[in-house]
Amino acid sequence: MFVAEGLKLVEDLISSGIKPHKIFSTQTIFRRGNLPLQLISEAELKKISGLKTPQAVVGIFEIPEPQEINYNQWIVALDDVRDPGNLGTIIRLCDWFGIQNLVCSETSVDCFNPKVIQATMGSIARVYVHYVDLKNFLKNAPLPVYGTFMIGKNIYETSLPENGILVMGNEANGISEEISNLCGQKITIPKFGHKKAESLNVAMATAVFLSEIKRFTEK
Amino acid sequence: MFVAEGLKLVEDLISSGIKPHKIFSTQTIFRRGNLPLQLISEAELKKISGLKTPQAVVGIFEIPEPQEINYNQWIVALDDVRDPGNLGTIIRLCDWFGIQNLVCSETSVDCFNPKVIQATMGSIARVYVHYVDLKNFLKNAPLPVYGTFMIGKNIYETSLPENGILVMGNEANGISEEISNLCGQKITIPKFGHKKAESLNVAMATAVFLSEIKRFTEK
Repeated sequence: MFVAEGLKLVEDLISSGIKPHKIFSTQTIFRRGNLPLQLISEAELKKISGLKTPQAVVGIFEIPEPQEINYNQWIVALDDVRDPGNLGTIIRLCDWFGIQNLVCSETSVDCFNPKVIQATMGSIARVYVHYVDLKNFLKNAPLPVYGTFMIGKNIYETSLPENGILVMGNEANGISEEISNLCGQKITIPKFGHKKAESLNVAMATAVFLSEIKRFTEK
Repeated sequence: MFVAEGLKLVEDLISSGIKPHKIFSTQTIFRRGNLPLQLISEAELKKISGLKTPQAVVGIFEIPEPQEINYNQWIVALDDVRDPGNLGTIIRLCDWFGIQNLVCSETSVDCFNPKVIQATMGSIARVYVHYVDLKNFLKNAPLPVYGTFMIGKNIYETSLPENGILVMGNEANGISEEISNLCGQKITIPKFGHKKAESLNVAMATAVFLSEIKRFTEK
């Protein structure tokens, strides 16, 4: 099971077909009769909510069944992304840019962590997240592997294939050496600004790479 | 004055020429003799730090002198961006993509808010942030104004000029009507994914627009 809070998010998950196990609310806001709804007091809400400012609705949902990975499209792979906000943002980006499958190393943060769920804004219902042995996955995947590095081929000058795997690395250390060896292509976002500009956060960099992949392959 | 915490950030600000007023540290980590350094205890650090997990160094810096806006380059303008994390991330993006001037409506969050400073990762030293009456600024600026909207011209199919102003809107409401009327061009990031994908966060969207502006104008 996993937890999602807030009317908008809970409604979005339900309408996307994620099965609610129980919905706790301080208000009778849901009109549909067949929801497992339970009215609770403000005091009870405060106790069960994980948010600083609890919203009126807390939903408990069943974790959806794992899906098969579709290799006929771009896939994003994360090597040890640890921050829940980053993972949530990346799931939201995948949803926007039409990436259906997100593959995570087993060391990456759990996508059903409440902070991830809140950051996805409902996109968790539409992006399939798979936890795998990333090394084996990349070795056996029938697609070219594009790793993102501080030094690599300029993404704007790279001819991108119709399908591939985009690998993003850990917040502090980037892609590990083991995974790096499996990246047939090493790509980078050139720095246009001051030489001291340190780096882009992994979610920002994912936004830029996905934008460029879609611009290049779907135009 | 403003506050910055953490050895890396404090060192980065000092080496970027931001004048330290006082630096509090639990360790004698700075070797240069002319810094206004004061050793403090762990207990004192805990009292003055704004972080959940205090780092060894807290710096108090002088807010730098305002700079003239340079109109011979792209400028980013924010209409009422409220979240400190978003502003910090946008400043970091500006640094990476070589945007020197960031113009904010007076209702936007203060760029010297400690949460913004921490999120900029030192980029606050290299990006000049100006708080202005945005309506007057856009009316009088000698550059074309590109507003970002949910509906507009596809950014990937837009011919972009060498210099211009990119306007990003509020987290919940986007660009206000008043400012919208001053945007000569309305542009958007097309949605490649599921129709239910709600929107991109303002910082994510800024990443995509800046990437595309630089790719298009500097290639």
